[in-house]
Amino acid sequence: MRGIVAFYLTYLLCLILGIICVALVVHWNYSYRGGFAWDGSAKHFNWHPVFMVTGMVVLYGNAAILYRIPLTWGHNKLPWKLLHAGLLLLSFILSVIGLCAVFNYHNANNISNLYSLHSWVGICTTALFTAQWVMGFSTFLLPCTPMSARAFIKPTHVWMGGIILVLSIVSCISGINEKLFFALKENTNGTLPYSALPPEAITANSLGVIIVAFGLVVLKILSNQIWQRPETGYEEGVYQVKDKGFYDVFDYSLIVCNLRTKT
Amino acid sequence: MRGIVAFYLTYLLCLILGIICVALVVHWNYSYRGGFAWDGSAKHFNWHPVFMVTGMVVLYGNAAILYRIPLTWGHNKLPWKLLHAGLLLLSFILSVIGLCAVFNYHNANNISNLYSLHSWVGICTTALFTAQWVMGFSTFLLPCTPMSARAFIKPTHVWMGGIILVLSIVSCISGINEKLFFALKENTNGTLPYSALPPEAITANSLGVIIVAFGLVVLKILSNQIWQRPETGYEEGVYQVKDKGFYDVFDYSLIVCNLRTKT
Repeated sequence: MRGIVAFYLTYLLCLILGIICVALVVHWNYSYRGGFAWDGSAKHFNWHPVFMVTGMVVLYGNAAILYRIPLTWGHNKLPWKLLHAGLLLLSFILSVIGLCAVFNYHNANNISNLYSLHSWVGICTTALFTAQWVMGFSTFLLPCTPMSARAFIKPTHVWMGGIILVLSIVSCISGINEKLFFALKENTNGTLPYSALPPEAITANSLGVIIVAFGLVVLKILSNQIWQRPETGYEEGVYQVKDKGFYDVFDYSLIVCNLRTKT
Repeated sequence: MRGIVAFYLTYLLCLILGIICVALVVHWNYSYRGGFAWDGSAKHFNWHPVFMVTGMVVLYGNAAILYRIPLTWGHNKLPWKLLHAGLLLLSFILSVIGLCAVFNYHNANNISNLYSLHSWVGICTTALFTAQWVMGFSTFLLPCTPMSARAFIKPTHVWMGGIILVLSIVSCISGINEKLFFALKENTNGTLPYSALPPEAITANSLGVIIVAFGLVVLKILSNQIWQRPETGYEEGVYQVKDKGFYDVFDYSLIVCNLRTKT
């Protein structure tokens, strides 16, 4: 019972941090950056951080920890699989809109695309996320995929899930940092420079810190083996290959012992 | 045997990526940023990325995976504990020198300290690393610490170890990105702007990508339960509390079952 209470308290923290992330990124761009438009102006760019933080961090993180919620531990996993895939698809769509926002803005203003390290890491993250979703869908939702293939791919799928979140956070922090250096220059529209830490800088820096905190809480939930969905077999089938991912409850002592004996 | 070969191949990749990281960060600052000095000039700043990447990423990552090397799996763990703590202390000292470099440079040039999101995340990472080292030393190296306390703290120590590496990578990527926007401006010393991707931008962006790749390989080594140091008891003692960290081989099925029965 104590484990369940601890989980729900951590999950509540995760939800609160996620809501604060979305509220702060909207507030930053609405109150300090002039709001939103889809017309090639600076307001067009403002959709980029909003959609990336909402899609690639908050929605993605919540989709990743779905199976850790004890409410989802009923016999039939299929509805939760569909919800997991659906939330991640929504997260992917938001990310693509966020990418369109920045590409459109750059193209409308003759700014080069994909030159900064932020953009290199960001585009790799989105590419990995796309591959992960397609692989996840074809492995875990197509009925024709053999159980042995699902069991074989699951550890990689789970590990990649955590890594994509880490890369999303790397992209967000470098992007917010870059944007603040661009936007907060001395004598530009009367704003104070970033180095003077005006209210906008405090707001966006705090957003960055809360994104990191959200990511750490999600990674903690994913990594805590005691909060895993308990399953001794894989749905109707039985694991053919033992899991060896981040988060699995299966016992590896025997494998390790065998390994040592053989060497 | 196959597990050992796979480990050593991954470890070799980790070593190669680490060496490339150090070589690239030195090359970038030596060949493109004018080299090194300790005189308050821009060359003084150049020590900052070199020491942070070498200390907080490469040396730290290698220290973190020390116990995964099968060579270290002998009966006596103490020499490896001392090496683990020693490498991390060296990593910490390099990081402090790296921080001194940037603070000295800022102070000598009347530039504010600790205002950017990069610096906020970076200073939190160093603070966490300090706390982790002190906690690790007092828990695992002081003979007076009870075995039960060691077993209780170990999962948190292991988890925090991975998280500090993630935060170091976040700090490095945002820092390299920031530095390139500062350094590569049109009409500054005849350099091409960052957006034109001159050779310096390609070099430093590649450094960022290789830092990320190095971090992912280290996290993969840490998370692969089959590569863990096998230990059924804690040194001379026996675990009093079951581990529930990222990387432990112990079986949690029973705990999960008990949890479900009790609720």
